[in-house]
Amino acid sequence: MPNVSNVVKRIAIFGVGLIGGSFALALKKAGAVGHIVGVGRSYASLERALQLGIIDSIATSAEIAVKDVDLVLIAAPVAQTQAILSAIAPHLQPGTVVTDAGSTKSDVVLAARAALGVKLAQFVPAHPIAGRELNGPDAALSDLYVGKKAVITRLPENSDADVARVAQVWEQCGAIIHYLQPERHDAVFAAVSHLPHLLAYALVDDIARKPHADLLFQYAASGFRDFTRIAGSSPEMWRDITLANRQAMLQELDSYTARLQVLRECLLTADAAGIEGIYANAQKARHNWISAIEAAEKQQREGGD
Amino acid sequence: MPNVSNVVKRIAIFGVGLIGGSFALALKKAGAVGHIVGVGRSYASLERALQLGIIDSIATSAEIAVKDVDLVLIAAPVAQTQAILSAIAPHLQPGTVVTDAGSTKSDVVLAARAALGVKLAQFVPAHPIAGRELNGPDAALSDLYVGKKAVITRLPENSDADVARVAQVWEQCGAIIHYLQPERHDAVFAAVSHLPHLLAYALVDDIARKPHADLLFQYAASGFRDFTRIAGSSPEMWRDITLANRQAMLQELDSYTARLQVLRECLLTADAAGIEGIYANAQKARHNWISAIEAAEKQQREGGD
Repeated sequence: MPNVSNVVKRIAIFGVGLIGGSFALALKKAGAVGHIVGVGRSYASLERALQLGIIDSIATSAEIAVKDVDLVLIAAPVAQTQAILSAIAPHLQPGTVVTDAGSTKSDVVLAARAALGVKLAQFVPAHPIAGRELNGPDAALSDLYVGKKAVITRLPENSDADVARVAQVWEQCGAIIHYLQPERHDAVFAAVSHLPHLLAYALVDDIARKPHADLLFQYAASGFRDFTRIAGSSPEMWRDITLANRQAMLQELDSYTARLQVLRECLLTADAAGIEGIYANAQKARHNWISAIEAAEKQQREGGD
Repeated sequence: MPNVSNVVKRIAIFGVGLIGGSFALALKKAGAVGHIVGVGRSYASLERALQLGIIDSIATSAEIAVKDVDLVLIAAPVAQTQAILSAIAPHLQPGTVVTDAGSTKSDVVLAARAALGVKLAQFVPAHPIAGRELNGPDAALSDLYVGKKAVITRLPENSDADVARVAQVWEQCGAIIHYLQPERHDAVFAAVSHLPHLLAYALVDDIARKPHADLLFQYAASGFRDFTRIAGSSPEMWRDITLANRQAMLQELDSYTARLQVLRECLLTADAAGIEGIYANAQKARHNWISAIEAAEKQQREGGD
């Protein structure tokens, strides 16, 4: 593994909300960063981030933001990635590593190829698997990434040193590094994150459209609350993710709809064994998954790795 | 409202697990019951319930269980309701009120009509809206029903006094009484509880069947965990509920699948506005619902009613 210093002197963060702000707070807490400059669409958010000690200064343009920085983190909704990369490309100095925190990766890689040209090798795409329903600088937490996965989808063009630099900062945030190919990443998260969001939004939307929606919501209880928690997430952010990953989501949606058709047939024919078979398979798989998570968490708490 | 005594002298509970056990503990805590006799399929569960102070004695048959009791609660999986009612029918004394805690009501009413004959008026169907993922006597909690709804789906044959008796015991458990027609009850819970369970089971089953299931589960995070929490529930119990309420569930499933088809079309055509419209409608409806719940909880805490 290439040798990299433990402290990054200067970092620029595009988007100082939950994701970018938590990254900043974590690195500051770890003493792993010198100066953080913030840049973004909302000046109010930047001022708030400055007030909260998330960033040390505000840059009013991409050009100023990336001047003399060692690392750039793009933590804005994925649909903005290409515009941000295009804005910084002409000003990107050799030696600066650029990374992102987007929930989709194939589209981000396409955007980077289009925007960065010969500087593509400086861009190491990544995705920290963490979040909250809250947004903005006030939602940022220094421990948001502790024990969570950060997936790096490195490009063939990337140098080992640049990949190691990105891995190091996420490790300093407390994250556990995983590597996937961009397409593999998108297929995986279509199944376990993006489709569930679509399904939860669709259920609440379906109920809200019914003439007796008020009656229905009156009797919705804790099971419904948990099932639909992800439908409380930002529609704009999830619209972007859905569009960016729509091919993989279509595949997962069709696979899921086929299972619903099997269950529909069981309902029509009152097939008790068919229903119980699916329910029991799911319950067992989920039980095994939760057990594996809990074992891993226990190992982590006990100082294993 | 008819005048009813505050203490029920003797109660028989069929099924001393989470639901029946919590009912018993709540009434004991409230000093609202004299003696509780337990009866059920599993002798081990009955002995455990006795040990935990949930019940005061064990009956080895339905006949013995219902002798001289003021109230019978059936807290077994819904598919067993008719068999239990048939077993107690010949021994049911005038003045004993029978109620249940099943998650479906139309089928329970049909079962009661078939099993109880001229004694039908003594059966007041009900459904407490509370639960946990755990089962059995050890899962029972004296405060499980505090602040939760208990829905009574009274029959035309019921006397006001018997309905008031059932309402009273659930109020003594801390529950808030609601009234719905059985068919209305089933339509409501198909939408906000039974369908979400089916959808969660279907998603975990779909993922578990894929050849790369292990990889997928490895990257599933907290959003997936909450979305699928209800797929950790008992497959037997939910098979019964699904079958008992399959007509209403088919309607809800078809309505939901139609929304998924709209979203599928949006994915195919990259319709950003269409996707955001559905996501935003859902997010807003959920936000309003959560706000209403929190306002009601606040009012309750502050001593309102």
